[in-house]
Amino acid sequence: MIPNAIVTPPFNITRASHAVLTARDLGATRAFYCDVLGFLPSNQDRDALYLRGIEERSHHSLVFHRTDSASVCERIGLRVFTDEDLDKAADHFTRLGHPVRWAEVPHQGRTLHVDDNVGMPLELCAVMDELPPSLQKFELYKGASPMRLDHFQLVTHDVQRAMEFYLALGFRLTEYTATDGKDEIWGAWLQRKGNPHDVVFSNGRGPRLHHFAYTVPETRDIIHVCDVAGSLGFGRHFERGPGRHGIGNALFVYFRDPDGHRIELFNAHYQAIDVNHTPLRWDLTDTRRSQLWGLPAHAKWFFEASEFPGKPLHEPLLHAEPVTLEKFLATHF
Amino acid sequence: MIPNAIVTPPFNITRASHAVLTARDLGATRAFYCDVLGFLPSNQDRDALYLRGIEERSHHSLVFHRTDSASVCERIGLRVFTDEDLDKAADHFTRLGHPVRWAEVPHQGRTLHVDDNVGMPLELCAVMDELPPSLQKFELYKGASPMRLDHFQLVTHDVQRAMEFYLALGFRLTEYTATDGKDEIWGAWLQRKGNPHDVVFSNGRGPRLHHFAYTVPETRDIIHVCDVAGSLGFGRHFERGPGRHGIGNALFVYFRDPDGHRIELFNAHYQAIDVNHTPLRWDLTDTRRSQLWGLPAHAKWFFEASEFPGKPLHEPLLHAEPVTLEKFLATHF
Amino acid sequence: MIPNAIVTPPFNITRASHAVLTARDLGATRAFYCDVLGFLPSNQDRDALYLRGIEERSHHSLVFHRTDSASVCERIGLRVFTDEDLDKAADHFTRLGHPVRWAEVPHQGRTLHVDDNVGMPLELCAVMDELPPSLQKFELYKGASPMRLDHFQLVTHDVQRAMEFYLALGFRLTEYTATDGKDEIWGAWLQRKGNPHDVVFSNGRGPRLHHFAYTVPETRDIIHVCDVAGSLGFGRHFERGPGRHGIGNALFVYFRDPDGHRIELFNAHYQAIDVNHTPLRWDLTDTRRSQLWGLPAHAKWFFEASEFPGKPLHEPLLHAEPVTLEKFLATHF
Amino acid sequence: MIPNAIVTPPFNITRASHAVLTARDLGATRAFYCDVLGFLPSNQDRDALYLRGIEERSHHSLVFHRTDSASVCERIGLRVFTDEDLDKAADHFTRLGHPVRWAEVPHQGRTLHVDDNVGMPLELCAVMDELPPSLQKFELYKGASPMRLDHFQLVTHDVQRAMEFYLALGFRLTEYTATDGKDEIWGAWLQRKGNPHDVVFSNGRGPRLHHFAYTVPETRDIIHVCDVAGSLGFGRHFERGPGRHGIGNALFVYFRDPDGHRIELFNAHYQAIDVNHTPLRWDLTDTRRSQLWGLPAHAKWFFEASEFPGKPLHEPLLHAEPVTLEKFLATHF
Repeated sequence: MIPNAIVTPPFNITRASHAVLTARDLGATRAFYCDVLGFLPSNQDRDALYLRGIEERSHHSLVFHRTDSASVCERIGLRVFTDEDLDKAADHFTRLGHPVRWAEVPHQGRTLHVDDNVGMPLELCAVMDELPPSLQKFELYKGASPMRLDHFQLVTHDVQRAMEFYLALGFRLTEYTATDGKDEIWGAWLQRKGNPHDVVFSNGRGPRLHHFAYTVPETRDIIHVCDVAGSLGFGRHFERGPGRHGIGNALFVYFRDPDGHRIELFNAHYQAIDVNHTPLRWDLTDTRRSQLWGLPAHAKWFFEASEFPGKPLHEPLLHAEPVTLEKFLATHF
Repeated sequence: MIPNAIVTPPFNITRASHAVLTARDLGATRAFYCDVLGFLPSNQDRDALYLRGIEERSHHSLVFHRTDSASVCERIGLRVFTDEDLDKAADHFTRLGHPVRWAEVPHQGRTLHVDDNVGMPLELCAVMDELPPSLQKFELYKGASPMRLDHFQLVTHDVQRAMEFYLALGFRLTEYTATDGKDEIWGAWLQRKGNPHDVVFSNGRGPRLHHFAYTVPETRDIIHVCDVAGSLGFGRHFERGPGRHGIGNALFVYFRDPDGHRIELFNAHYQAIDVNHTPLRWDLTDTRRSQLWGLPAHAKWFFEASEFPGKPLHEPLLHAEPVTLEKFLATHF
Repeated sequence: MIPNAIVTPPFNITRASHAVLTARDLGATRAFYCDVLGFLPSNQDRDALYLRGIEERSHHSLVFHRTDSASVCERIGLRVFTDEDLDKAADHFTRLGHPVRWAEVPHQGRTLHVDDNVGMPLELCAVMDELPPSLQKFELYKGASPMRLDHFQLVTHDVQRAMEFYLALGFRLTEYTATDGKDEIWGAWLQRKGNPHDVVFSNGRGPRLHHFAYTVPETRDIIHVCDVAGSLGFGRHFERGPGRHGIGNALFVYFRDPDGHRIELFNAHYQAIDVNHTPLRWDLTDTRRSQLWGLPAHAKWFFEASEFPGKPLHEPLLHAEPVTLEKFLATHF
Repeated sequence: MIPNAIVTPPFNITRASHAVLTARDLGATRAFYCDVLGFLPSNQDRDALYLRGIEERSHHSLVFHRTDSASVCERIGLRVFTDEDLDKAADHFTRLGHPVRWAEVPHQGRTLHVDDNVGMPLELCAVMDELPPSLQKFELYKGASPMRLDHFQLVTHDVQRAMEFYLALGFRLTEYTATDGKDEIWGAWLQRKGNPHDVVFSNGRGPRLHHFAYTVPETRDIIHVCDVAGSLGFGRHFERGPGRHGIGNALFVYFRDPDGHRIELFNAHYQAIDVNHTPLRWDLTDTRRSQLWGLPAHAKWFFEASEFPGKPLHEPLLHAEPVTLEKFLATHF
């Protein structure tokens, strides 16, 4: 069992905040996220599209920059509590030898760019423009009625190393996957906001963004967005689910957007705040960790992810063949 | 216990079909039914508005004729299986001494007008124009996502008399309210289509239409339509619920439309097909028959209803003061 | 387009009624159906187990006879309206040259055994013992909270032939699968009770029972039963779903019971009563007919089914390779 | 508008933790909470009953001590992050002149007793015994499937004063009720854990506990617990709802337990973490703040609450007659 040490964080990261991605056709992106999934558009111009979930008052949790190249994830956004925390962060990362850069980002306050220790490009800010609440404009609920960004899952060649970086920033471990009988970490669920995850690291060729995840109100929304995607002709964007993750307890469905970026829509997280909340361990060979009831994920879900621009890929330090749906059907079934 | 006799019906009524109402402002009516409740508009001109539920392929289940007078219910529509049944119906009612009249009604096939034995003006037809299915256009689901018309509740001065008329037409009794210890009938739930009700008769000043009822897919839709009504400023149209009827097991909510016509949105009916399916009896004093868990209905719900044009009102034969919410709060609570 | 002719049925079949199956371990069968899926047990002795859904007042809709041999489906039960219909049925089938036999069946009234024209062994009765209602004993709802038996899907080598037999009994066609551009029937959805199906015939090696299906109240129940199956260690019984059938609009999940019999749990059927309710046609190559949003079914779902005792299997008259999940993953994905 | 100042808290309170109440019959209390509402019992002896929600791994969030006197609320439990925070808390309160006392409490770590500045008796601790997770024992979900304690609503004669005390401890204001046009505070929603509320103060005769509130997974659970309460004969414990609070967006239902303590079951909270998350203001005369769609609460809901032992009641500083259901029915309706 891996205990959570009590850490006094060098500055206060509060939560997963936003993702910055590129897209080849902002119109197609908007149709997918707004018409099918039910996101609210905050702003759009020729070169950028800003989206948010229904309960979000911050200006954006998804930003798409128009590109003519292959689509990538530009940055993972984390929120800190105050602008003072940004200064502390800049000092902290500089001391660690991670170059920092102050950036000007529309609709955001002061913003700091820095990479983590496994090559993920981060963007930290304390404030965004605040928009009027839409939570009780119930006539806007449609598709999945996505409420808010919850977490990122990131693929890295060295989960142990990434985990240590984030634990030192005050993240706490809620669940993890480990080699049977050993504490060799394959996946780490890490959080700041008091639920199972703000960032998840999984073992693989990285750094890459596996997916970002939004909460939805109920089971019904998970099913309804599948129905709407089906009836609007977006069936090819459907990737996996619905199913129940053993880890984190999420009832999930995964879609791929028009550029192949993966989004999880889920509900049913839990609260993880107490100092003695023991991290849950899952053995690598326990397929229930990814799907409590049914069939495992197919190979594409395991192996495809969004790259970060200019970040060379590293082969994972740990090696094991996942039990893919393809294998499962061929052998167990 | 009141058994259902086996009756060979003189012609084949299949189900509750549609209601014909008047409204003073078709725009306001359409805003309420389509924007808030989620009905689909089939047709509208200066003088009439035709609506249907999402799964209905028949052209309309609600018709509103524009009026400058007080709003009324013009007719209760019942479906028969074939046009041949209409001819048999005309013969049957003529033999009984009920005048019949053939009517021309837009979007309907041959249509027969006749009054029942307690003064309800009926309209029978076998076919309507058939529209393309919308059931799997999930992007159209909104408000309550009303699926289909299920039943009418009618107020009559003589429930026993009305019940006998409909039993002779092959309707079967599923549930009824009776004076404690006696078979004096206060309410009768009668059906042809194999669920709890096509027409319900309740004791009171009649003939009047208490409400028409539409099925909705799930609990969530019952709540969502309340939320949407609230957020679009239609809170004053909300009348009663959500609650669970003991009789019929409906999870219900009641709204009043802009003309005061009452609509029930509900789900969770059951199947009632078998010849030995015993009608359920509820004692008059058992308040669980109308609300299984919570507070009873307020006085308006008990006493207000839509009149039929030119039909004189009769005082009920049976008299008892209902336990209204007003009384309940003053005494039990 | 295949129209429904207006047929005067020789006797009145009202609905799909019950299935009679064999099981090798009644304790395991009961644990699966009652503890996991939420069925109510009506009676059990050393040799038989009788189950029903929560709203069913008829004594049983599933009967399991203990066997030491391979498990089979003994009979498909259909309900007729009255005992007089049974006599008419006996006359009718005798005239057609189908041998009939009167059987003594516990908890059922007079019962008639006969085979249909593609070898399915049927059991007809009008009445069963009636049990007190459990519909409003909400504390009994668990697992999927199965409400009532809805339909059977039967595999036959000659769907066209089977369809003609049932149409002549007054069944009506609601949906069908046909060779693209032709009226060569691969699947037929047939009903008596006014919703999409009482019996479904699909093309394949037959006669076999593909599955029986129970309605559940809501989306949530579909997911909850998967969760309960997972947490009670019945994950291996999970077979397919959740998904949305294009045909019939069912939100479905499929399980295999301890003997391999397949059960569908679904909700969201629609009403199909009117004489001009046009059957919906689906092209054979349209994979949306079986799954509106996601991945197709795997090979086992297509090819495995319960046999009937002593009924020789016939190879299907029509041949086409289904798009299985295995193929789909290898080619499209 | 009332802004949230940035406060460096003297010690780290993390969340609402537990309530300590008295009950006259622990058997009746357990039947109500466990059989009807779906709580899990953690421990029971002759004199105490410990309960928790399904996802809670901490030993208890509700404690009932057996009493022969009138039932009261003994203490409101708040969690701090570490034992070190307890020492800091003791120092802080001592400096403020609030007497503190260290208590021995079964199944809890070090525990500090202190009163707040409006007379609420608090109990602070960092750790409790940790129990194995039940979140994925889905077969245990029943009644409302209560997940976790979320917040307390406390009645005080001086909301402004209470609010200032908790703001100084690092609580942040998410919503508030104020006299129309003025910043005279009638109700204050205060939080530490990043959602709308850990403690709510409302104006009235205090100090008293108005209710404690548990999250439930979905809309369906809100309805199901009403149904179960109705079918198990606990209808008299049902008090208010279901409805939607404008403030906090909770879909709610209220029950009274066998001793009259009030519990709210709700879902649909939102996230409130960011430093510039502006508190929402509701005018005192806006009835939508308490019920977004329907009828207001009856007088009992407004005026009854659980007292604290030995705490004299103070008349509220602000006076206004609430729009009760009784008044609403008599005047608007």
